[in-house]
Amino acid sequence: MPSSWGKIFRVSTFGESHGESVGVVVEGVPAGIPIRMEEIQKDLDRRRPGQSDLTTPRSESDTVRVVSGVFEGKTIGSPIALIVDNKNTISKDYENLRETFRPSHADYTYQAKYGFRAHVGGGRSSVRETIARVAAGAIARMILEDDLGVRTVAWVDSIATIESGIKEDRFPSTREEVDANEVRCPDEPTAKKMRELILRMKEAGDSVGGNIRCAVWNLPPGLGDPVYDKLDGDLAKAILSIPACKGFEVGSGFLGTLQTGSTHNDEFYIEESSGRVRTRTNNSGGLQGGISNGETLVVRAAFKPTSTIFKKQNTVNIEGKETTLQAKGRHDPCVLPRAVPIVEAAVNLVLVDAYLYQRALNPSWFKKWAKLPSYYDDLKL
Amino acid sequence: MPSSWGKIFRVSTFGESHGESVGVVVEGVPAGIPIRMEEIQKDLDRRRPGQSDLTTPRSESDTVRVVSGVFEGKTIGSPIALIVDNKNTISKDYENLRETFRPSHADYTYQAKYGFRAHVGGGRSSVRETIARVAAGAIARMILEDDLGVRTVAWVDSIATIESGIKEDRFPSTREEVDANEVRCPDEPTAKKMRELILRMKEAGDSVGGNIRCAVWNLPPGLGDPVYDKLDGDLAKAILSIPACKGFEVGSGFLGTLQTGSTHNDEFYIEESSGRVRTRTNNSGGLQGGISNGETLVVRAAFKPTSTIFKKQNTVNIEGKETTLQAKGRHDPCVLPRAVPIVEAAVNLVLVDAYLYQRALNPSWFKKWAKLPSYYDDLKL
Amino acid sequence: MPSSWGKIFRVSTFGESHGESVGVVVEGVPAGIPIRMEEIQKDLDRRRPGQSDLTTPRSESDTVRVVSGVFEGKTIGSPIALIVDNKNTISKDYENLRETFRPSHADYTYQAKYGFRAHVGGGRSSVRETIARVAAGAIARMILEDDLGVRTVAWVDSIATIESGIKEDRFPSTREEVDANEVRCPDEPTAKKMRELILRMKEAGDSVGGNIRCAVWNLPPGLGDPVYDKLDGDLAKAILSIPACKGFEVGSGFLGTLQTGSTHNDEFYIEESSGRVRTRTNNSGGLQGGISNGETLVVRAAFKPTSTIFKKQNTVNIEGKETTLQAKGRHDPCVLPRAVPIVEAAVNLVLVDAYLYQRALNPSWFKKWAKLPSYYDDLKL
Amino acid sequence: MPSSWGKIFRVSTFGESHGESVGVVVEGVPAGIPIRMEEIQKDLDRRRPGQSDLTTPRSESDTVRVVSGVFEGKTIGSPIALIVDNKNTISKDYENLRETFRPSHADYTYQAKYGFRAHVGGGRSSVRETIARVAAGAIARMILEDDLGVRTVAWVDSIATIESGIKEDRFPSTREEVDANEVRCPDEPTAKKMRELILRMKEAGDSVGGNIRCAVWNLPPGLGDPVYDKLDGDLAKAILSIPACKGFEVGSGFLGTLQTGSTHNDEFYIEESSGRVRTRTNNSGGLQGGISNGETLVVRAAFKPTSTIFKKQNTVNIEGKETTLQAKGRHDPCVLPRAVPIVEAAVNLVLVDAYLYQRALNPSWFKKWAKLPSYYDDLKL
Repeated sequence: MPSSWGKIFRVSTFGESHGESVGVVVEGVPAGIPIRMEEIQKDLDRRRPGQSDLTTPRSESDTVRVVSGVFEGKTIGSPIALIVDNKNTISKDYENLRETFRPSHADYTYQAKYGFRAHVGGGRSSVRETIARVAAGAIARMILEDDLGVRTVAWVDSIATIESGIKEDRFPSTREEVDANEVRCPDEPTAKKMRELILRMKEAGDSVGGNIRCAVWNLPPGLGDPVYDKLDGDLAKAILSIPACKGFEVGSGFLGTLQTGSTHNDEFYIEESSGRVRTRTNNSGGLQGGISNGETLVVRAAFKPTSTIFKKQNTVNIEGKETTLQAKGRHDPCVLPRAVPIVEAAVNLVLVDAYLYQRALNPSWFKKWAKLPSYYDDLKL
Repeated sequence: MPSSWGKIFRVSTFGESHGESVGVVVEGVPAGIPIRMEEIQKDLDRRRPGQSDLTTPRSESDTVRVVSGVFEGKTIGSPIALIVDNKNTISKDYENLRETFRPSHADYTYQAKYGFRAHVGGGRSSVRETIARVAAGAIARMILEDDLGVRTVAWVDSIATIESGIKEDRFPSTREEVDANEVRCPDEPTAKKMRELILRMKEAGDSVGGNIRCAVWNLPPGLGDPVYDKLDGDLAKAILSIPACKGFEVGSGFLGTLQTGSTHNDEFYIEESSGRVRTRTNNSGGLQGGISNGETLVVRAAFKPTSTIFKKQNTVNIEGKETTLQAKGRHDPCVLPRAVPIVEAAVNLVLVDAYLYQRALNPSWFKKWAKLPSYYDDLKL
Repeated sequence: MPSSWGKIFRVSTFGESHGESVGVVVEGVPAGIPIRMEEIQKDLDRRRPGQSDLTTPRSESDTVRVVSGVFEGKTIGSPIALIVDNKNTISKDYENLRETFRPSHADYTYQAKYGFRAHVGGGRSSVRETIARVAAGAIARMILEDDLGVRTVAWVDSIATIESGIKEDRFPSTREEVDANEVRCPDEPTAKKMRELILRMKEAGDSVGGNIRCAVWNLPPGLGDPVYDKLDGDLAKAILSIPACKGFEVGSGFLGTLQTGSTHNDEFYIEESSGRVRTRTNNSGGLQGGISNGETLVVRAAFKPTSTIFKKQNTVNIEGKETTLQAKGRHDPCVLPRAVPIVEAAVNLVLVDAYLYQRALNPSWFKKWAKLPSYYDDLKL
Repeated sequence: MPSSWGKIFRVSTFGESHGESVGVVVEGVPAGIPIRMEEIQKDLDRRRPGQSDLTTPRSESDTVRVVSGVFEGKTIGSPIALIVDNKNTISKDYENLRETFRPSHADYTYQAKYGFRAHVGGGRSSVRETIARVAAGAIARMILEDDLGVRTVAWVDSIATIESGIKEDRFPSTREEVDANEVRCPDEPTAKKMRELILRMKEAGDSVGGNIRCAVWNLPPGLGDPVYDKLDGDLAKAILSIPACKGFEVGSGFLGTLQTGSTHNDEFYIEESSGRVRTRTNNSGGLQGGISNGETLVVRAAFKPTSTIFKKQNTVNIEGKETTLQAKGRHDPCVLPRAVPIVEAAVNLVLVDAYLYQRALNPSWFKKWAKLPSYYDDLKL
């Protein structure tokens, strides 16, 4: 099961829902960077189960520790291994799933692929694997922020039919704005309605999905590699690799297909204050030909309603017999509030890799757009 | 500029719009397969410019030749290089673009990334690069068809606001059905309307976009690798790497976010005739946990309106001055009819790689689902 | 710092000498394989410091634990993470090395590359990293043995000028023969001399090197990929990645350059008993064109004398001043006895990857040469 | 058949001995570099058959053309495709090899691996594939020379038992010194003896091998990635991927195993004139811990006697019958003079990739050691 990602900032994750630990190894991290463990922990806390009554009650502190790659508080260029132990595993809750496939989960497909699987807690297909990405993503974020001033902010844009309707001119520009409520929708009245719907679904033993939008502020032009490693393609892959994600858009996305070229094209102009090339509209979503153009990067992802519900469902078992299933265990009636930091992590992992690759290929670009943080002054080459 | 794709069936492409040739090298092709060049050519002909009055009049026969990897008509395991020469290049048409950036094209972003670019015909960002994928995709298709009986069929589902409304029970099951009209929409009345709209746009010097849907028939369960190489993620990346694509969905996609878990989940049952595990609905679009589940794989891709239009537009030039641009040259008022075989190629390239990887990891799966074609009997190991 | 290896059976290692742990993540392991932890531990015990008076007295039990990828004793296809904690780290022994570069160690080059390093215990350049390879290599070995009957055996062939003179007809065929003495030279009189020399060097605060030879028995023809992934190339890279290795040969190696083609060529014949193609001589060392030919694979590796010695040496410090250094700490006067299992692991990791890749590309080959172990019968696809 | 190489400067080659063409695609080349085609051609001419009476008389001009990636004489960041057509193929010479395996060639192993092969001219295993590496290596060389002043020089160090005995203080520092004679041994009396031996062997229908040494001048410290991508490991793999190579050493190599640590260690000192860290001896061969240390990089490679000889040999055929073979066709009695530029290309390809990777990870290093050539001033970012 390939579980790696990235050309230079290369992330490999491991761990199942009910195994001993989940973790991540990151190769390709520059040396000399102070690792602010409390920031990694804070990102994990945003993803943590049990953080509000909207989420699964599985109680995990998700405390992260670094076991390699950091020495006296700074990176040394070695692979960084970050590990979170699983504490609150209740495997007996899953005994009835040893033989029975949960509808719209990965139970049947794992069985069909591997012929043998860990039936407890979804094994490797559990959303617990995303701990690893969020931890690695926090390191990616530090580099992007420190070197380029890039700021990645995701939020819940819709839950079922409740839409925030937030347009680009009202996009939140900080994670704090998003975290102002538990739903992570930075429009308070909408968030309230979403919260009510989620709780109603929880009570009914049902679930809902929705859309997450993510904006990247201050991204310089020139990142992303055309042809097969387009930034949009890499972002799509990274985001669709998050459990429950079924769709991805950049810029105008599906709605853009309703326009004509003359209304859809983003005309260029020169921004007077900065002298920079800008576009008057941003239907491109910050990307043209797979490369960032200096506008705000805007992507959107669709997350289906959580597959685990507490209603009785028809299904089949490993012996090829039809049966029914009534789920037990602990689950989220809606994954979106917790998926917000996971989407951000996915985006940051893609961006940092594109950034490091661009450093390899074009030092002139680096000189123009990046600003080496002061801690690099401590390096003794 | 990374231009490679795939873990085992590895494709590397090269060539610019107005260079000498475009081509592709494919590593990881099993030996002993008869290469039916006429099928590769036929796929290229479906992508070829000038095939109807809906497309650019650039006149290219796009005749493919194989320069390595095939001996006496069969693959020998070596890298297969397929090359198509560019014939009808008119570089002078582009002289005014040496300094000026076309809106919503990749001109500015290439400049911002590389600092130097081929301004003629879009260089590497031209859709001519997709010749290489279609040629490689034809080999992928042969393997998938011969070994697994897999059949990939894409078609135009909407142009601007004109939607075909074709539901899964009416999906076309062959490429011939799709090719019955030049628009490649297998619903004749809709196709007629689409055709009229495209021609009207052509006349107006404007352009339109739309959606392409793609179905994969007869895909066995178990393909695709969970976590970062999910089949949905790889498909998204492959399809978003096609010029003009801005969105991707699998199964219920964005509309699925409007449902609840209890209506969205795909209940399993046992198909009496075959004894196989099936689902009653297909909101999953044939994928669960990133792995195929044996149902029809269904994806959809959004293509924006062609960026080249013949109306005057505001833009800027390489010196950072504002200017205007009135496009000349030859272009498609709507890329979708020609994009159909490109989407199919992208899908087949992803699938064949997942298939070969699965062969490596699980020979029992291979024994259950694949049927080695008779030409393998000629191998003398 | 890239720390990964392999196309399918992909190994990523992490950990420094004096960090919390060293470990390895292995992607691309087939599901359903019983993991015999005691065999992994046994391989680690062969590598362990303190196993005899010939090795460093650093006292580490090197107890391995599996934290993912194994469920109820069998692989599930997920990444397998194996971790060994560092217990006996005495960082204060290294305080004098914070500023001073040990001659012929990686101290100066790490500093020149990264600008910041972990000076304790050699950090990532320590031979402790090889724990990770040996653990992963044990899994590789199980697959090779179970599926193909392949047996990899390495031994100490020379120490300084003391050569065993063991020719191919006397090669040891089991690890037990090699482990009959602490030097791991399967010629008792030679081993005795080697032992005396090593102890004499230890007493003198000096060190010695030597050669390790490795034979792979029962390797079927057809493994290895010509051109850039030749088996000899991959083996060379894998073995030269072991600390202190300075040379690699396959078959006749450097001595073969003294012959003429007519004496060096390995003539083919048909082995009567088996009907198999064989060669009368084995100057090729089991490889032709980078692919195994069915003969015993024979490689040899040169290990320089351990760089840590207890004599005073001239050197420089991080401030660019000349200084002297008298080493303290715990080290091996000769690394070869402990390097034997590391070489075997390197070889097995290369072979298992070539084997899995060959399964992807040529199922007919698999049918001819491999025998699926009985535990695959338990798979329920 | 994987045929790719490199993490960033990624090379993919294609083509068989008697196919239409051989060629190479290079991804990961920075934009804006003037490509001096005459230098690429000159490198190919050094590798060309028929350049002297010491080589095969196959008459090939090996004229290279660039079909993509270069625009108006400069790189544009796109993949560069370089192609050389095969002209002088005489396939009928090989008809007797359709069924019969040449001893110590790759005929049998290709058959055992693929079950089907191109028997003419060795197909993909032919040394003609190395054209592709030499062409790509020339681009690598330009970058290394222009940015770092690195100079890679290889030469013939021994043929059979005739050794040049050239020590590090007499190493040639330019390719011109090496090309002063046709043997490419920069010691005239030795070269003369070698020439006589090769011609005697040619007349006798026999062949000889020997060693090639390669030095890299002016390599800054800090290149190469410890653990699995050590520079020594990557060099070994690259050089062992050249047909007929059977051994690799760096620095003291196999002879170094005869020393003790106290004599083998390279003591550091500060070079007064430059203030740089240097070593008094160079047993390390310029590499410590897999990373360059600023001394001259010194490697040595063993090439076996050419397998094609014109004496009758015992062998077997594809039907598993014993038979004899008397070679026809055109071949080199000694590959070494032509292998010199191939070794240089292999080394340069490894070094340029390590250099670009280092640029990604450590811009401070870049600032210290590299000097951007003036043509980068023309970039307009």
